[in-house]
Amino acid sequence: MASLSPSLDELVDALKRLPGLGPRSASRIAEHLLSEDRARATKLASALDRALKRVKHCELCNTLTDEPMCAICADETRDRSKICVVESPADQRVIEETMAYRGLYFVLMGLISPIKGVGAEDLHLGKLLQRVQKDETIREVLIATPYTPEGDATAHFLAKAIASVASQVKVTRLARGIPAGVELEYTDANTIAGAIFGRR
Amino acid sequence: MASLSPSLDELVDALKRLPGLGPRSASRIAEHLLSEDRARATKLASALDRALKRVKHCELCNTLTDEPMCAICADETRDRSKICVVESPADQRVIEETMAYRGLYFVLMGLISPIKGVGAEDLHLGKLLQRVQKDETIREVLIATPYTPEGDATAHFLAKAIASVASQVKVTRLARGIPAGVELEYTDANTIAGAIFGRR
Repeated sequence: MASLSPSLDELVDALKRLPGLGPRSASRIAEHLLSEDRARATKLASALDRALKRVKHCELCNTLTDEPMCAICADETRDRSKICVVESPADQRVIEETMAYRGLYFVLMGLISPIKGVGAEDLHLGKLLQRVQKDETIREVLIATPYTPEGDATAHFLAKAIASVASQVKVTRLARGIPAGVELEYTDANTIAGAIFGRR
Repeated sequence: MASLSPSLDELVDALKRLPGLGPRSASRIAEHLLSEDRARATKLASALDRALKRVKHCELCNTLTDEPMCAICADETRDRSKICVVESPADQRVIEETMAYRGLYFVLMGLISPIKGVGAEDLHLGKLLQRVQKDETIREVLIATPYTPEGDATAHFLAKAIASVASQVKVTRLARGIPAGVELEYTDANTIAGAIFGRR
């Protein structure tokens, strides 16, 4: 059928390319925004505009921030001898919420993935390696990538690269183990195996 | 933790209120737009702006369209004695794609749902009933709402309301039955029961 609304089609097309959305959810969202919830649509459009203008990558740690340098990197009370390497600002946020870490960060904005064609050069790893090499206050890099094939590949690559440019820096990774509050019986074998190897 | 980017938070907040999205998918989409895919973000922002300016409800059938009256309502070759009532423009699109229906439409933009607090008055049903009452060319209203509790409630309400304002108009509903290309063994009992009652 000829389209009843090219502008609606164009919006659906832009929405369906977002991660996690397909054509059906995109058209549901577009119809909702344009019919029931125009106020929300206007708010989304202005939030998107503003974010595009204001949000940039922190010049030191690469996280998303409104300032040239993010509040964590700029905070002189943080422990500057440690860098925690995470996949995304969301992962950085959950680590901050634990209050268990007071060092600095480096945000990869992705993981090494041969399948998706993401290599070390796409993750600004050069920036991290230079920082580790030049800044002599750094004593430890804690790699907090997930225990997935891509997280493992990234951790492996990073550990080797850091050892070759700054052999005095200790490279650690988050412990594998049993999550809190979960019955053993519902935990997968891989996780239990990791917890057995890492037992103390 | 203090937010590193209030503009990012605001975008996540606007996204997570969209139907089908939660806080996690919203923050994944926002981070993706602002770091990997700024070109797409700009395209989405302009598509949204344009759609908000151009898309409106068809003055006759209520579907989303760029014109005051949609191309289907304006098409003089369509069978004007039939109105098919659908939940959404997306449902209207799939019916058009079958090429099995050449009449007009009425798009509810929702279904009656006591749980969500959506009543008959929210669905512009008055507009449909007036049209059925006044336009004497109309011979049939085909209710194409889904076989769900909300679709059934809407169909039931509509059938009664149409009978009371225009008793000469035939009210029909899409047949219940077995979907094409699906094994009986994988079909739920409700669908099979419907197909048995509707057997011919």
